[in-house]
Amino acid sequence: MGGDHAPEEIIAGAVEASREHGVGLVLVGQAARIRQELERYDAVGKIPIVHADEALDMDEGALASWRKPRSSIAIACHLIKQGRASALVSAGSTAGVVATSRLRLKGQQGVMRPAIAVTLPTRPRPTILLDAGATADVKPEGLVQFAALGTAYGQILLGLDRPTVGLLNIGAEPGKGNKATKRAHELLSGGGNHGIEFAGNIEGHDLLSGRVDVVVTDGFSGNIALKTMEGTIRTAFGEVRETMTTGTAARMGALLQRRRMRDLRDRFDPDTYGGGVLLGLNGTIVIAHGASRARAITSACELAHRLAAGRIVERIREQVALTRTSRFGRRTHGERDSTDEPLGDLGPVQKQP
Amino acid sequence: MGGDHAPEEIIAGAVEASREHGVGLVLVGQAARIRQELERYDAVGKIPIVHADEALDMDEGALASWRKPRSSIAIACHLIKQGRASALVSAGSTAGVVATSRLRLKGQQGVMRPAIAVTLPTRPRPTILLDAGATADVKPEGLVQFAALGTAYGQILLGLDRPTVGLLNIGAEPGKGNKATKRAHELLSGGGNHGIEFAGNIEGHDLLSGRVDVVVTDGFSGNIALKTMEGTIRTAFGEVRETMTTGTAARMGALLQRRRMRDLRDRFDPDTYGGGVLLGLNGTIVIAHGASRARAITSACELAHRLAAGRIVERIREQVALTRTSRFGRRTHGERDSTDEPLGDLGPVQKQP
Repeated sequence: MGGDHAPEEIIAGAVEASREHGVGLVLVGQAARIRQELERYDAVGKIPIVHADEALDMDEGALASWRKPRSSIAIACHLIKQGRASALVSAGSTAGVVATSRLRLKGQQGVMRPAIAVTLPTRPRPTILLDAGATADVKPEGLVQFAALGTAYGQILLGLDRPTVGLLNIGAEPGKGNKATKRAHELLSGGGNHGIEFAGNIEGHDLLSGRVDVVVTDGFSGNIALKTMEGTIRTAFGEVRETMTTGTAARMGALLQRRRMRDLRDRFDPDTYGGGVLLGLNGTIVIAHGASRARAITSACELAHRLAAGRIVERIREQVALTRTSRFGRRTHGERDSTDEPLGDLGPVQKQP
Repeated sequence: MGGDHAPEEIIAGAVEASREHGVGLVLVGQAARIRQELERYDAVGKIPIVHADEALDMDEGALASWRKPRSSIAIACHLIKQGRASALVSAGSTAGVVATSRLRLKGQQGVMRPAIAVTLPTRPRPTILLDAGATADVKPEGLVQFAALGTAYGQILLGLDRPTVGLLNIGAEPGKGNKATKRAHELLSGGGNHGIEFAGNIEGHDLLSGRVDVVVTDGFSGNIALKTMEGTIRTAFGEVRETMTTGTAARMGALLQRRRMRDLRDRFDPDTYGGGVLLGLNGTIVIAHGASRARAITSACELAHRLAAGRIVERIREQVALTRTSRFGRRTHGERDSTDEPLGDLGPVQKQP
């Protein structure tokens, strides 16, 4: 039910994912409305529907997770908890999806904080950046865990055994940065983190250069970097277009290049490459861009299928257990662990800031 | 002596600033080498020279401020302390210039931490962003002070009585952000900050939209945003160029647009708009881009002249005193204040992390 073009385009994309790509789907939302759409594709009865009374509005933030306990996202999370679904795809409000799924699915064992991983349009293969905004304040140990989350995700998405991981920072040398990144660099460089191919600090101008496979940063800086990139691309292409259509010679030139420029703009369009995956919960959440049309939803369903088939949650658990930070996670965010009883349940997801 | 093209281009730019723009200058560095260059412009004896035995190398970082107490930057700072100069211009290593001038000039009274202000190429007038990297970890009160520093700088640079100030954040609503920005938003929105025209949160995609005159952020996020912008522009224009020169029709189009595209690239070239001003010390420091040629140095000298004439240091003191944070500064970073004697000298600049 979420997204600017819901439910029409969402259902069209889901039908395509089911028919052409063999993705097993359940549609969650207003049953009557969904059935009506499915009729257009002669797909009634072929894709199961689970009814949900409510849906989050696109402008609803984190509080919606409390206000609407029967939202389509909440119900979809419930299906995951029951083992009736392996992953969730939504084009709804990012804040609402993140808050609801954190509340319903909880953080997976050993993981301190979840992160949203997005892909940047680098060549020849995309670069993964995390966190794009799920956790604004991150401790050094949390950054090390993001490296583990990114490694697990990169293995499945990029098909690499050991994706390289860079730490987003304000200088290339080890001593650079704020307190959190200085310490995270020490932790990542030192021994004890198996399976993470740490490539050192990278800077803002490296984000689109493809220098590393995975870029790790806190959700505050990551979100700012990502939106700065989007705004800069919009401004730059806007200026290029203006330049190309001012004056007769330039206008003629523009006609000769129209198609190529459009391809280029599409590659950098967040609606095309956009969306993200929320990592670190007891379930896989693919957050498609709010502006998603059918094609983007089909891709999101395929990605969710691929991540579930690649056992992303288990892979993250194994990867995090190989870092020196697993003990932090157990005490702050994970499932209750009997050895931690004396400390109590220090940080259930829903109480985090 | 600092910069990729020192001393030739530096001196050429300085001579131009002195002759054509009436900027009163002292050249600090290797006296014999400087005199040799001045001969080319028939300017020996017209611009005073102060000899300095050493110079910071371009790849030297903050430690150089200790290793080279007689560097040209250190000597220039000494001239400011003696009242023989009002401002300093350098194209040397940013880390070296910042560390040396913090050590020699100290933070000005009331200011907790210094910030580097840069200008972004927005239209119709530039946008000021601070901090671009002087202080990586900033407390909420420090962000409020950066708003005061940026306001004072904006008044002189943009000629506005009340430049609007935005807080760089990860959402437009007041409750968004990390701990520091949430609290800074409260402080900036509440009463008690006179003279700061606070316009609320802005996001990464607003940086080039010209929505506010001054953007305030910590040096970590600011540096990442700035470098992300530079890298994105380089990538985008690189791709546009490639697109425009692949295929015969496109190549013909490119010929018709060559001049306009070059103008556009120049506007976004950090070597053209680059450089920054270090605010919050007992003296004005203009840090020109390392790649600066004569024209950029002339502009930097004019800017330094304008800031000194506009009494930037006094203006910052007055502006900071009007915020609720002036008491923080007195205890942590400023000149010794007799009423603070019992607390001792808690935070001289050189001991800060």
